[in-house]
Amino acid sequence: MRALITDLYELTMAAGYFEAGKTQERATFELFVRKVPENRPFLIAAGLEQAVDYLLQLRFEEEEIAYLRRSAPLRGVPEAFWDYLRGFRFSGDVFAMPEGTPFFAGEPVLVVRAPLIEAQIPETYLLATIAFQSMVASKAVRVVECAAGRAVIEFGTRRAHSPEAGVLAGRAAYIAGCAGTSNVEAGYRFGIPIYGTAAHSWVQAFPSERKSFEALQSLLGEGTVYLIDTYDTIEGARQAAALGRPLWGVRLDSGDVVGLSREARKILDAAGLKDAKIMVSGDLNEQKVCEIVRAGAPVDAFGVGTELATSADAPNLAAVYKLAEIDVLGIKRYTWKFSPEKTTLPGAKQVFRFADRDQIGCHWECPGPNSEALLKPVMIGGRLVQELPGASRSRDYCAQAVRRLALPRPVRFSEDLLALAERARVKFDSAQERSS
Amino acid sequence: MRALITDLYELTMAAGYFEAGKTQERATFELFVRKVPENRPFLIAAGLEQAVDYLLQLRFEEEEIAYLRRSAPLRGVPEAFWDYLRGFRFSGDVFAMPEGTPFFAGEPVLVVRAPLIEAQIPETYLLATIAFQSMVASKAVRVVECAAGRAVIEFGTRRAHSPEAGVLAGRAAYIAGCAGTSNVEAGYRFGIPIYGTAAHSWVQAFPSERKSFEALQSLLGEGTVYLIDTYDTIEGARQAAALGRPLWGVRLDSGDVVGLSREARKILDAAGLKDAKIMVSGDLNEQKVCEIVRAGAPVDAFGVGTELATSADAPNLAAVYKLAEIDVLGIKRYTWKFSPEKTTLPGAKQVFRFADRDQIGCHWECPGPNSEALLKPVMIGGRLVQELPGASRSRDYCAQAVRRLALPRPVRFSEDLLALAERARVKFDSAQERSS
Repeated sequence: MRALITDLYELTMAAGYFEAGKTQERATFELFVRKVPENRPFLIAAGLEQAVDYLLQLRFEEEEIAYLRRSAPLRGVPEAFWDYLRGFRFSGDVFAMPEGTPFFAGEPVLVVRAPLIEAQIPETYLLATIAFQSMVASKAVRVVECAAGRAVIEFGTRRAHSPEAGVLAGRAAYIAGCAGTSNVEAGYRFGIPIYGTAAHSWVQAFPSERKSFEALQSLLGEGTVYLIDTYDTIEGARQAAALGRPLWGVRLDSGDVVGLSREARKILDAAGLKDAKIMVSGDLNEQKVCEIVRAGAPVDAFGVGTELATSADAPNLAAVYKLAEIDVLGIKRYTWKFSPEKTTLPGAKQVFRFADRDQIGCHWECPGPNSEALLKPVMIGGRLVQELPGASRSRDYCAQAVRRLALPRPVRFSEDLLALAERARVKFDSAQERSS
Repeated sequence: MRALITDLYELTMAAGYFEAGKTQERATFELFVRKVPENRPFLIAAGLEQAVDYLLQLRFEEEEIAYLRRSAPLRGVPEAFWDYLRGFRFSGDVFAMPEGTPFFAGEPVLVVRAPLIEAQIPETYLLATIAFQSMVASKAVRVVECAAGRAVIEFGTRRAHSPEAGVLAGRAAYIAGCAGTSNVEAGYRFGIPIYGTAAHSWVQAFPSERKSFEALQSLLGEGTVYLIDTYDTIEGARQAAALGRPLWGVRLDSGDVVGLSREARKILDAAGLKDAKIMVSGDLNEQKVCEIVRAGAPVDAFGVGTELATSADAPNLAAVYKLAEIDVLGIKRYTWKFSPEKTTLPGAKQVFRFADRDQIGCHWECPGPNSEALLKPVMIGGRLVQELPGASRSRDYCAQAVRRLALPRPVRFSEDLLALAERARVKFDSAQERSS
């Protein structure tokens, strides 16, 4: 049911490859990000689980094929192609950086090696899956760093780019170190901790703030978080303090949160509620979190929504999925694209992480035991090599990988890859001349 | 299956309202955008069809309820609430601006009037649905305007915030005037025209550019669009011209497209292909489209992707869903939130569009035949009032509404609404004092 979530040209090309007899050619496509946005020292890979799930389940249903047959560019395509599409399964190999891996511009984060058509059709879906979650994870890792040990909860579903994007944003943010999300479906589907107590409408739905607080306390007990800024934050803090235990604490969602959190702290402390916590939310991002932390505000947790779930300062990654080589019955052809601004290097690659640098090399290189090959086998022959780790283990992996990552980190091409590129270029130029 | 795509606090509050005996209270919530982003003279409403579809189908499945019962904040909730959730249906009323309606900051674009719990639970999903599609539509209407009659195709799925966001971005862009989308699922699901022929990988998958062009022409005939910038744009244009008819035209995806389109035009014309068209794509937005059009470049169509599908210069709308009033057995209580930066006006509203201004008034006002009430009944008692118009008719509606919209357009509150707000404030203050 997701097979049609793709750009039409993937299917037009599939039909063309089929017509041109290219079903036996094996292609290697590489997914990488051309440029890392400002204010991101590195990116965090995420979305692999959804990408693999898609590849494992990719089928064209009869009704979808009927629709394609009626569509203008595919109307003349011979019956044999539709039969091919009916039997379509992804039978290829996937290599990828594990979710949570820090990566840099130009480094393939996912590699697909499959019969040409099988590798081409998933392009759009894979890009939208990996680029989006990696974008959110890369923003989240910054917010978490700025929070300096205080919990960060992802709150952004309402402003996400569709409800489903909100679910996946919660997942990506968690992998990158958030403590959890407000999105219940993300909890249900991925086992992520979920958080949330009450909104301003709760306070408003009762005849007075105090009555709303009493009702909340009776419902949630030790989990009670009073939202104290609906009418007047200081007065709200007093009402919360007056109700005493049980409570978790209070949340501020507007105003000068540094000053207000100090006032609220004093009020809570004066009421003997020294262990009551203060959470802050409301249009936060990593800079604001940094400022609040640096100001020494007595804040125990942050709720970060819109800017995190939409990566507002860099709301897309320049992710591409490029053909690196084609293997026709064992003979390799290395592929290039050298438009002025958009040159890519040919050949299937591997990314090697050394203590002090990354090296992008040919996939067959063995630069020795001091480096780790970041692209791991994920699927072989259309099947999972092993169970994927899931969001929680990916989160642990991410924390460890970020901790170990020495920065700044040059990213270099290997000698072998540069030599291969040069040979491929010479060969390509002569082929173009022959055919003109 | 979408019931859990919500913020946890919606469900916590639902449990609390249930406990507090508030199942008979009827609430009116209003969804509006606090602030229109820069470079958007107005916003375009979109997403209503998906919002309504969600409300019609909203159910909690047994497995989802089992998950909620295990979740920390809901663990102590009495059995009666879970029974309530098992039988949950949205039985309320919805008023909304039709998709394609231009709107402004502070104007409710969707109003939900329902038993309090039924109105509260959908908040997150409704916001993520309406705000996202309205955001994309509001960007698209600008791009289409800048294209000054040339076709604009939405190309952005690969950079969208998840594959599903790509589908919905294609829909929203079409409503706002795009000619179609590359997203096949958007075509399948919503009947939107779909476009797409071949990528750079197609050109690379053949031993030479020329062979790839021949294969494309043989596949697509009059629909052939040669992508000519894989290696050298001018040489690509020559190869395309040499192949002659049939073709639709060529596409440029990089470089100085103004200059290159002129060169390509000359080459095509010289080959007698005056009716062959030129399409331009590659990191476009409304400003670049304007520049290309103003430079008089011979461009017939634009493919606009990333910046459109992610609304890159304003990647979220400050959309909120606020409680306006509560009706307890016929007695109304008007609700306020007056935190410093975020004041809202109480009372259920209507938006009246006059020739030269908009007026936000009380929902019962009748300001006369020279104005149109923009919020129309969509659902009554949980049922659709009438079939929604679908993407194509919404697109016609949008074009007409935008054409008729005189700008600049002041947005004022009515006298009655301001008077109601003042009365509500006085009443509220005395209630707070009594309860303290």
